[in-house]
Amino acid sequence: MTDAPHYSRQLARFAAGLRFEDIPPEVIERTQALFLDTLASILAGARMRPVQAIQRVADVMGPAYGPAEVLVSQTNSSPFFAAQVNAAAAHVVEQDDVHNGSVFHPAAVVFPPALATAQMLERHGRDLLTAAVAGYEVGIRIGEFLGRSHYRIFHTTATAGTLAAAATTGRLLKLDAEQMLHAFGSAGTQAAGLWEFLRDAADSKQLHTAHAASCGLQSAWLAQAGLTGASRILEGSQGLAAGMSSDADPTRLIDGLGSRWTLLETSFKYHASCRHTHPAADALHTLMREHGLQAADIEQVTAHVHQGAIDVLGAVTAPQTVHQSKFSMGTVLALIALFGQADLLRFDGEALRNPDVAAFRERVTMQFDTEVDEAYPRRWIGKVTARTTDGRTLHARIDEPKGDPGNTLTREELEDKTRRLVQYGNPAGSTEANAALAERIIGLAWNLPTLGNIRIFA
Amino acid sequence: MTDAPHYSRQLARFAAGLRFEDIPPEVIERTQALFLDTLASILAGARMRPVQAIQRVADVMGPAYGPAEVLVSQTNSSPFFAAQVNAAAAHVVEQDDVHNGSVFHPAAVVFPPALATAQMLERHGRDLLTAAVAGYEVGIRIGEFLGRSHYRIFHTTATAGTLAAAATTGRLLKLDAEQMLHAFGSAGTQAAGLWEFLRDAADSKQLHTAHAASCGLQSAWLAQAGLTGASRILEGSQGLAAGMSSDADPTRLIDGLGSRWTLLETSFKYHASCRHTHPAADALHTLMREHGLQAADIEQVTAHVHQGAIDVLGAVTAPQTVHQSKFSMGTVLALIALFGQADLLRFDGEALRNPDVAAFRERVTMQFDTEVDEAYPRRWIGKVTARTTDGRTLHARIDEPKGDPGNTLTREELEDKTRRLVQYGNPAGSTEANAALAERIIGLAWNLPTLGNIRIFA
Repeated sequence: MTDAPHYSRQLARFAAGLRFEDIPPEVIERTQALFLDTLASILAGARMRPVQAIQRVADVMGPAYGPAEVLVSQTNSSPFFAAQVNAAAAHVVEQDDVHNGSVFHPAAVVFPPALATAQMLERHGRDLLTAAVAGYEVGIRIGEFLGRSHYRIFHTTATAGTLAAAATTGRLLKLDAEQMLHAFGSAGTQAAGLWEFLRDAADSKQLHTAHAASCGLQSAWLAQAGLTGASRILEGSQGLAAGMSSDADPTRLIDGLGSRWTLLETSFKYHASCRHTHPAADALHTLMREHGLQAADIEQVTAHVHQGAIDVLGAVTAPQTVHQSKFSMGTVLALIALFGQADLLRFDGEALRNPDVAAFRERVTMQFDTEVDEAYPRRWIGKVTARTTDGRTLHARIDEPKGDPGNTLTREELEDKTRRLVQYGNPAGSTEANAALAERIIGLAWNLPTLGNIRIFA
Repeated sequence: MTDAPHYSRQLARFAAGLRFEDIPPEVIERTQALFLDTLASILAGARMRPVQAIQRVADVMGPAYGPAEVLVSQTNSSPFFAAQVNAAAAHVVEQDDVHNGSVFHPAAVVFPPALATAQMLERHGRDLLTAAVAGYEVGIRIGEFLGRSHYRIFHTTATAGTLAAAATTGRLLKLDAEQMLHAFGSAGTQAAGLWEFLRDAADSKQLHTAHAASCGLQSAWLAQAGLTGASRILEGSQGLAAGMSSDADPTRLIDGLGSRWTLLETSFKYHASCRHTHPAADALHTLMREHGLQAADIEQVTAHVHQGAIDVLGAVTAPQTVHQSKFSMGTVLALIALFGQADLLRFDGEALRNPDVAAFRERVTMQFDTEVDEAYPRRWIGKVTARTTDGRTLHARIDEPKGDPGNTLTREELEDKTRRLVQYGNPAGSTEANAALAERIIGLAWNLPTLGNIRIFA
């Protein structure tokens, strides 16, 4: 073992040494967008039951004062608990980002500890951005390293997330490479998160991001306080992969460090529905825009899909719950046709109750498409055919769903998503106050590289 | 799966339903002794570097006030951080208990959350004892369930310990069986702890007990707050054993629940040396007592040992560090002969510096013994032969080392160990204050079943 490349150390050295000046401008800009998307996701989840349960216990266990903002309650606490509660909220409405290759949701476990630590240390916006990039690059590579066998049992966002949180926090604490390696050791030996909760639809997903964010944050602080950790926690013979993976590839840990920016490979979630509906939704949206159509102009829609879409979505014909409606292709395309949106508010408000949605749903069918199927999962092609009431047959296609790296959201689309998420979560208690809060975080995100003090509410 | 026995639920039901009245008196009495042993272990570890690092970060992240005592600093905080820091300290001098069958150290992860939660809720001593028994019975069975394959990579005290802490805390919170099952779900999905740190002699062992105690405690509070967890976190197809064991036996989870008291199977550690030296140390102590000998009366000692002892201890002939001296049979027997003790203070003060110890060490040899070797590891027989300066050849044997279930410590021996551990840790800053503190915890432990309010310092 001692002669093998020291992957953990190389990754720690990268995270500890990363400077704002070394990061390409497009990576910084995307990080600002991801920061905004995360704040909005946290605020959207503010009033969800599991988040409030975690917050209530944090209120008992943590200080009722401190330098770090608990966004869901607009209170203050220590960085540990602020990161914990904010991370619990970040993932609950499932509108935060995803990195396809690692099946990892970095934002939920990177930005909460970054914000909490930056607030405590009064760090500059550039420091927060640099630290977040370090967290993304570390976490995504660890997710890729742990591989598919890991993901079968373990929630990668929880496990790799603990190390991503440690890397982020460690960079803000200005740990040197050796200290960062100790932080990795302490984080890796606390990394946990099992998929078993899915079987009961239990609340553990929120606990996983909360645990990853707070334990990862703590690991970096512990390294600063002198606590040592294993130097090969990732690849060692009694390390993370030895215990929790059978197909780990340590070369992935250092793949393109400093030249490949995995942060740019993450996708924004745009629609609030099952991912399999997104390509057709975007294609229908394109078709209606290009031909200037209203919902009433459309007599029939065919979504040309891959087999996976039929397998997952085919069972839902007349949805009974909001959750089911997100897996109903007819409902999703109806919301797009009627409102141009398939967001959280539309699902809660319109998907089941609006008779126009039910009527449009009946006009939608899915059809297996060889081209779409063969491209999947490398590419998620969207193809629709629409027959109009005036007898035309129209086609549209998109080659990458909205939000994916090659079709990322514009600033306007992201701002729009932000406003809708904040209204959905209602953290400020009124439409006006929520709107003001949304504008505040939008301004904050776009100005982050020049901000010296990052307060969301103050 | 749905037709399989629901082991997790049966275990949760047992933990939630356990009453003081159901526990045999000898189990209660042993629990009091283990409680004392743990308080002493915590105080002994008060000033160790890893403990102080964890405490410093807890000071930053936790409240500087609260109902729960941080024993190592004589300060107060929330139950989460008091349990975390006390658990970090409980295992550091390695004088806390062990359950051989599960290779699990229950005390370090059971009593810190028990004490912190009992203090917060102002529970009676009987409630603390009942909760601790629940934690032991749950944790030990989970350790046995996870098996040897788990222990090869994972630190069972950390993983099973998280659930033991949840069971203990949940019992004090009076969770019902369903809530207890949710607490198990949340604890199991946070269970973590890898042996990789051993390769670097890093500090993770203290982090493991700290993490298990605080996350387990939090899991029970979360269940009370309504957070749900997986209902088969232990035996489910994406549960703890699926992810972290290849030889798990779920029947072990419910083995003899309510009739077999695994707490009685735990051993106290008496000598501060490597376990392989203990049988011979006890045999020599017996021999000297029976024949009224002083160290100066002994010309030569032969320890008759199993092969494992020769493998582990044979390398150390002239120890250079305190740690090595604990693996030197000659040094250990010298301390016994000269002082009647091989405790932490003797190792720090005498083992390397006292010329009489070095001289006696040269008079000790180890010899392979077929009877001892064949009985091992089921029984740890101790056999010594001594040649006296007046020409006699004397023999002695013990069939179970001191501290094991069949040869457990008397109250006097445990009090004596307590006094020595507290002086070693020096938590109170002076010999007199430490002595008073030792007497206080001794009184507290023996009176626990009648105490309504459990304060160590107040």
